[in-house]
Amino acid sequence: MKTAVLGATGLVGRAMLKLLEGCSWLSGDPLLLASSRSAGSKLRFRGRELTVQEVTEDSFSDVDIALFSGGGATSRTWGPVATGSGTWVIDNSSAFRTQESIPLVVPEINGSLVQIRSGGGGGLIANPNCSTIQVAMAVAPLNEVFGLREVHVTTMQAVSGGGRKAVEELERQVAGQPSSAGDDEVFPQLIAANVIPAIGSALDDGSYEEENKVVKELRKILGRGTDLAVTCTAVRVPVINGHSAAVRVVCDRPVDLEAAHLALGDRPGLEVTNDPHDYLTPRQVDGQRIVHVGRVRLDPADDRALLCWVVADNLLKGAAWNAVQIAELLAREPAS
Amino acid sequence: MKTAVLGATGLVGRAMLKLLEGCSWLSGDPLLLASSRSAGSKLRFRGRELTVQEVTEDSFSDVDIALFSGGGATSRTWGPVATGSGTWVIDNSSAFRTQESIPLVVPEINGSLVQIRSGGGGGLIANPNCSTIQVAMAVAPLNEVFGLREVHVTTMQAVSGGGRKAVEELERQVAGQPSSAGDDEVFPQLIAANVIPAIGSALDDGSYEEENKVVKELRKILGRGTDLAVTCTAVRVPVINGHSAAVRVVCDRPVDLEAAHLALGDRPGLEVTNDPHDYLTPRQVDGQRIVHVGRVRLDPADDRALLCWVVADNLLKGAAWNAVQIAELLAREPAS
Repeated sequence: MKTAVLGATGLVGRAMLKLLEGCSWLSGDPLLLASSRSAGSKLRFRGRELTVQEVTEDSFSDVDIALFSGGGATSRTWGPVATGSGTWVIDNSSAFRTQESIPLVVPEINGSLVQIRSGGGGGLIANPNCSTIQVAMAVAPLNEVFGLREVHVTTMQAVSGGGRKAVEELERQVAGQPSSAGDDEVFPQLIAANVIPAIGSALDDGSYEEENKVVKELRKILGRGTDLAVTCTAVRVPVINGHSAAVRVVCDRPVDLEAAHLALGDRPGLEVTNDPHDYLTPRQVDGQRIVHVGRVRLDPADDRALLCWVVADNLLKGAAWNAVQIAELLAREPAS
Repeated sequence: MKTAVLGATGLVGRAMLKLLEGCSWLSGDPLLLASSRSAGSKLRFRGRELTVQEVTEDSFSDVDIALFSGGGATSRTWGPVATGSGTWVIDNSSAFRTQESIPLVVPEINGSLVQIRSGGGGGLIANPNCSTIQVAMAVAPLNEVFGLREVHVTTMQAVSGGGRKAVEELERQVAGQPSSAGDDEVFPQLIAANVIPAIGSALDDGSYEEENKVVKELRKILGRGTDLAVTCTAVRVPVINGHSAAVRVVCDRPVDLEAAHLALGDRPGLEVTNDPHDYLTPRQVDGQRIVHVGRVRLDPADDRALLCWVVADNLLKGAAWNAVQIAELLAREPAS
């Protein structure tokens, strides 16, 4: 499959490229695309240097699968162009995620939605929000076995989720380097040695964008409607990479720990520790593709409720790896 | 009132001393006490140097009020000695907090428990856990007005809560200084650019000590039993000072935002912002005595539920200031 990466120079784009190095279904080198600003940059792939090209109307004519990680505006502009060329677009922006006709896919949960329509050429598949992916991975098995009624999430999100400028902003602050005008533009206040409960823009319902994504996307991934109650408080923390989430779920049926361990165990892409004191931290999952669930505890006051701690590499399973997994599903499908 | 501070050289002890400088009810300089290890240290008080003395059986003979911040073992040893001398002990350790006969006091909530028994000389009053105090301050008014049924807390706790060694450990890691043997002894793994969901020792019920404190102490402060459901996930974050908590409460009665703002407004020691997007961060409350409640939102799926974000200086309202407030209550009481 001829593959392209749009937004190749960003943190997620680079992670995608690195993951694609291991994909045997690639035909030739991936086509690296970016806006005119980044065109001409060189990136390494399988030991060679590839040059990033400016994306144009003709970029996708030859491309089977395009991984988009250039942000919402880029996706809205180039998504229709690519699909119009018969390309499958796996879009990491939030532009299309909640559109009913567009599948929002975490392969381990609803990978069956990735189906090349016979006779159809191309289409769009949305890659969910980073926090949502890891929470969905943890609660989907519980939804299957116990039936989810409520999911309450507090995320602690790494700065890499905000892109390269966000990482640089934290690193500059930690190093005590004075910032010049326009330097500190990502976070609304100092993020070093601080936590900020505001990610994305403020929405009319009192939430911030990131919180709203978790609520809406989680329901869509699980195939649930507003009958599934979801709340989220999304907090930025001074961690370079790796999101954490403290999760409490309330189920339809009573939960026991052994059944919960069984539900969460032996799932592809998911690792669970049965000791309620065990956990991994963001530093420990940095570079890993799995989602780790620890601190699994019953709520002593409600026999249908369960607490857990979910960590994952937000650039990998939360973005690039999930997208590459979707690409693999497409690559394995019989050509239409 | 002749006052002593036991554990005067620690982070909380120093904060107590600074706050006592502003207390007109003090008679003379406070007596500074510590273990033999710290005895001889000099600390400034109202511009002069005071020498820390080793605590002995005779230390409290002349003392009306003793503020203890030397940890559980110190409190268990010296608490009975002090109260036996007719001294009022305000204990910042967890040694006595859950003993039924000992008041656990947040002055704004249950300050009426601080009563000098007529004819009685001395006694013990416990100062609650730092996270618990700020959460209690935020939810007590909701308990009064709406009746609390459930409180679910995710804390994000600063390293200063772990004492001076914990602060030094984070600072060393941030500076990239290699640690020598025994250096990194406070946290179970790197805390710089990380978050760790484990504070205190592991308990049999699957929780960690800090989580258990929030559950048990919150109920006691609010005068509630196990009919109040409480869960807590306590997370250490790489913040120097200032604890944050994401809180979700479920009440007995439907909650509306206006009534919630009214309930939380105009309370001493508490500040609430009515815009659901507004919040303060740990950096912003560093050095402040108030507890700040922001991000107050309704849970769209449950009209009895409310979300909020609670921040406070854990060394001040979470420890030293709450203790000094209790001392003030004692100082204002008519002598028995």
